[in-house]
Amino acid sequence: MSALAAYDDMTPSDAERWMQAMRDRAEAALDRVLPGADASPPRLHAAMRYATLGGGKRVRAMLVYAAAEWAAAAGAKADEGDLDAAASAVELIHAYSLVHDDLPSMDDDDLRRGRPTVHVAYDEATALLVGDALQALAFEALAGSSAVERIGTRVALLAHASGSIGMAGGQAIDLDSVGKSLTWPELEAMHRAKTGALLRASVLLGATAAHTPARRESDALDRYAAAVGLAFQVVDDILDVETDSATLGKTAGKDAMNDKPTVVTTLGIDGAKALARRLRDDADRALDELGNGVGRLRDLAAFVIGRSF
Amino acid sequence: MSALAAYDDMTPSDAERWMQAMRDRAEAALDRVLPGADASPPRLHAAMRYATLGGGKRVRAMLVYAAAEWAAAAGAKADEGDLDAAASAVELIHAYSLVHDDLPSMDDDDLRRGRPTVHVAYDEATALLVGDALQALAFEALAGSSAVERIGTRVALLAHASGSIGMAGGQAIDLDSVGKSLTWPELEAMHRAKTGALLRASVLLGATAAHTPARRESDALDRYAAAVGLAFQVVDDILDVETDSATLGKTAGKDAMNDKPTVVTTLGIDGAKALARRLRDDADRALDELGNGVGRLRDLAAFVIGRSF
Repeated sequence: MSALAAYDDMTPSDAERWMQAMRDRAEAALDRVLPGADASPPRLHAAMRYATLGGGKRVRAMLVYAAAEWAAAAGAKADEGDLDAAASAVELIHAYSLVHDDLPSMDDDDLRRGRPTVHVAYDEATALLVGDALQALAFEALAGSSAVERIGTRVALLAHASGSIGMAGGQAIDLDSVGKSLTWPELEAMHRAKTGALLRASVLLGATAAHTPARRESDALDRYAAAVGLAFQVVDDILDVETDSATLGKTAGKDAMNDKPTVVTTLGIDGAKALARRLRDDADRALDELGNGVGRLRDLAAFVIGRSF
Repeated sequence: MSALAAYDDMTPSDAERWMQAMRDRAEAALDRVLPGADASPPRLHAAMRYATLGGGKRVRAMLVYAAAEWAAAAGAKADEGDLDAAASAVELIHAYSLVHDDLPSMDDDDLRRGRPTVHVAYDEATALLVGDALQALAFEALAGSSAVERIGTRVALLAHASGSIGMAGGQAIDLDSVGKSLTWPELEAMHRAKTGALLRASVLLGATAAHTPARRESDALDRYAAAVGLAFQVVDDILDVETDSATLGKTAGKDAMNDKPTVVTTLGIDGAKALARRLRDDADRALDELGNGVGRLRDLAAFVIGRSF
């Protein structure tokens, strides 16, 4: 029995079909929001499309759509275009962060999603500008929502999650940690900022597209997002030592090679797997408090955490 | 008689006092919006403050405040905090663009505003993240405006001006132009994107903080901003060949050394000066159509264009 079959009454193939449909939907939304490769300046726009389209698990977009399904079940059905805008925005932020993280002055990685990274396929200066322009485009996409009175809160949420207190700040802590031995609380704080903040923003952007959830619901959504967000990195670190580069689509064992502390080097492989299972339980309990409409959020928790154990 | 005395009934010292007051106001607003240097991660936040505070002409912030004075005279007085947010946002975008432009893979500059550039004072990876986080902070600042129903339009305006069709796109064209001889229309299009788009956004963010101007007024504001925006670069290129590095606070003659086409190499020094004067006339004519309250916009045109001829 697969891990997915334990969740709700969804069959595995139903969850997988939904995820593929949401991936396709996000891909189409990104294709629409990105300027065409012939728009001036064409080289920059071609590189932006190369960096964003045709790959990626689209976990952040799927979290937007899944959280919106929960809100819709609670009576707050969002405009479909607004959901596409939010899904595009979080994927654009994610794509820009990968382009910049891969640069020689950062992780210096040549391979991403099985293809040459942007600075290898184009050049370093173009990769820098691609990231900068993708970030701007993320905010432009979100700013075009039809629920005009909610835009300020939503833009602030995404900006905060992406900036120096969130993703970029986590990346800075990560850089500073090279060659150091971090305690688990330090490593956890780094991952909550570097990866967790944007995943949390994805859940909240989906859940708040058409209404403001009650405090108790927001808290449960937050706990779900925090568990899935941290689990995402825990599982990534486990897969990084247990999978080869070809399967992973990026250079395996890179963090260890770069002398960066990982969840596995900090907690050991068994400790990391136990943590992943505990985080799945945390996510499940949070969903139990949210009532109806959490089926897709549960599918995603299983997808993120249940990939290998 | 100084160039400024020709404008309205302002004495030079009145215009200068106002500009200094607005610079101080923008500096204070930026100081408030930037996280403290002790906030985690402290090194990133210290570098963000280093990149943003304590320097710069603050032309973009001054354009926000000046355009808001025009709108106030027309009966649309904006919330003062909203103006500070807009002024901070455009200065944060400008500051991030300088940090990234100075990187080794771009212009590779060691000196900015008379001080070591961020990647020299810190390191390259930190400079990359500083720029990324400053961009996010710009949108967070703008998203916090009190005029909730206007936030979407304003965020989209700033994002469009900063992104691949605006500033980042202009920078990409600039990079592609190294070693090439551009025609004047090509160079003009590059500058209108690279520098002009954000200056134009500054004027529009100031003018639209509390109301939507009539079409005829928007057109005149656009023509004013386009003239001042292009003039800004024309004057910069003139100063770059006529001023030494110490006075300029950055490396003089850099573009020519980098084999980049400039307004001066394209039009000649006399042609560049004639263009600057023509653009000042364009700005003046646009302001004549806007009626009352344009005194500070006129001061700024004189400040930008009248610096040396």
